[in-house]
Amino acid sequence: MTTRSRALLVMDPDTFGVQFGQRQLRRLSALVELPDPIWTPDLDTPAARRRLRESDLLVTSWGCPPLTAERLADAPRLRAIFHCAGTVRPFVTDEVWRRGILVTSAADANAIPVAEFTLAAIIFAGKKAPFLAQDARTHRDDWSYVTGRGELSNRGRTVGVVGFSRVGRRVVERLRDLEMDVLVADPYAAGEEVATAGGRLVALPELLRSCDVLTLHVPSLPATRHLIGAAELALLRDGTTVVNTARGAVLDTAAIERECASGRLDAILDVTDPEPLPAHSVLYELPNVMITPHIAGSLGNETRRMSESALDELERHLSGRPLRTAVTPDEFAVSA
Amino acid sequence: MTTRSRALLVMDPDTFGVQFGQRQLRRLSALVELPDPIWTPDLDTPAARRRLRESDLLVTSWGCPPLTAERLADAPRLRAIFHCAGTVRPFVTDEVWRRGILVTSAADANAIPVAEFTLAAIIFAGKKAPFLAQDARTHRDDWSYVTGRGELSNRGRTVGVVGFSRVGRRVVERLRDLEMDVLVADPYAAGEEVATAGGRLVALPELLRSCDVLTLHVPSLPATRHLIGAAELALLRDGTTVVNTARGAVLDTAAIERECASGRLDAILDVTDPEPLPAHSVLYELPNVMITPHIAGSLGNETRRMSESALDELERHLSGRPLRTAVTPDEFAVSA
Repeated sequence: MTTRSRALLVMDPDTFGVQFGQRQLRRLSALVELPDPIWTPDLDTPAARRRLRESDLLVTSWGCPPLTAERLADAPRLRAIFHCAGTVRPFVTDEVWRRGILVTSAADANAIPVAEFTLAAIIFAGKKAPFLAQDARTHRDDWSYVTGRGELSNRGRTVGVVGFSRVGRRVVERLRDLEMDVLVADPYAAGEEVATAGGRLVALPELLRSCDVLTLHVPSLPATRHLIGAAELALLRDGTTVVNTARGAVLDTAAIERECASGRLDAILDVTDPEPLPAHSVLYELPNVMITPHIAGSLGNETRRMSESALDELERHLSGRPLRTAVTPDEFAVSA
Repeated sequence: MTTRSRALLVMDPDTFGVQFGQRQLRRLSALVELPDPIWTPDLDTPAARRRLRESDLLVTSWGCPPLTAERLADAPRLRAIFHCAGTVRPFVTDEVWRRGILVTSAADANAIPVAEFTLAAIIFAGKKAPFLAQDARTHRDDWSYVTGRGELSNRGRTVGVVGFSRVGRRVVERLRDLEMDVLVADPYAAGEEVATAGGRLVALPELLRSCDVLTLHVPSLPATRHLIGAAELALLRDGTTVVNTARGAVLDTAAIERECASGRLDAILDVTDPEPLPAHSVLYELPNVMITPHIAGSLGNETRRMSESALDELERHLSGRPLRTAVTPDEFAVSA
């Protein structure tokens, strides 16, 4: 290349520290020009505005400010954004699409740890492990509790996967060797694709009526708010475990509180609505509920999968090869 | 066949009920003669002794009484025992071997759920999920606790697998796609076999010094009692999680109590020594310890994998094909 593209990294300080180690920075600087400062957490300082003005490419991650029309007015050369995290919703505006700027996402790479965590949650749910562990704290050496939570087995169980999304599809694939029945509900999925991954596409009510573990993998959109509410939970059989590693709002908090407080359903919730739940929520106290603080997604070393995925895309872009993770305005409307 | 072999089922009532459904009984009666009573929980009633006397084969499971010389004196035709569970230790005596009776075990089938449970424990350990879930109960909406347990990531973590046993090997295989480093310590394992499964064979001290999650898969034998004691735990780095789904006695309870009470190590213990732990054990109270009541192995529908595996062996035996799970007196000395 005669003139190399100029790039700027935009993300918060912690994210920059974790996602861009020596290896990633070396790789990036072999691909593009990186004038100082190579990285900025905001776009409104004079130094950042100067860098934005001369940049052809942005490499973004958590903490990138919204790319408003005002800010983009100061970015005449910008033609592509390589995002090192999942959703681009927090910073991609209509103005980005209007200007025809290319946007890629590392949502695929971010799906990996979420699917792994969900797999662990499903296996533990089949054995009622988190709930028996809580019983052990109170019952101690009185093992009468062991028989109190129904069958403790995974084989032959039915897992209901709601949303054949990036994460949902990976969950189905990871369950393949476990001798479980995997049902999938997703109005946008094709039956053959689901079958190839190892599941069976059914309507949501059928899935709800049949599953032992329900796991949610839909994006948080106005249309998916409370997708699983009181009526849907009522279709679940007694003793079903609800797993949510997607977004809190897709599950009606008041409804799951009622079903878990009565002991009819169990839950493993990595995300909640609101997040965190208020201190008075009964869910914190229930032995049949496990709450983790939104940790299923990429953290620590897992986040470098995402920066490496973004660098892969940047490399493809520069060499004119087809991109793999470009986000289109249409997708933007229906995905996470 | 002109004369069909006669068989007797010997196991406790609950086990018989769970492991022998209509399908398994139909399959068994297509293979052998099953005079009434087809099943007995003990071997000393007149009816059981009459049945034992005429039996060529036993199909055994949990609760089978020891096959002592006295009892075997009353079993002149017995030539093979097909066990529908893991270890045959509780009932196989020297007299069984002296008589040259063939013994098969379903330990391979039993390894499946243990390896699945261990996989879930390892993934959750990398995210510190069980411990953060406990923190959530006390800290509720004060999310300052989220950063209190170190890195919450699985990628690039090192898992130390002690024992390349049936379960250990399956754990290594199941970890293959998770981008983790898997170290294995086992004085009986071959480096190439470990490498084929996806691990690297190292000496135990090196493994202990390098791992983020330690998981135990050795049989409980005099030689493995307290294999992991105070000195071995001292080699682990701060923040390592110890997973035990093998047998309680391979881990020194007093030593793990000290290390977990100080907060230096975390633990996920499905087995303990004694089992259950006495009510006063500090392990029940610690947020960084998850105790489950010995549920990783086959339970419920999972146990039918074992009866089906035993029936597979019985079928191979009757048709003169080589057996896959025969237990030899030599193996008996060094395995679970």
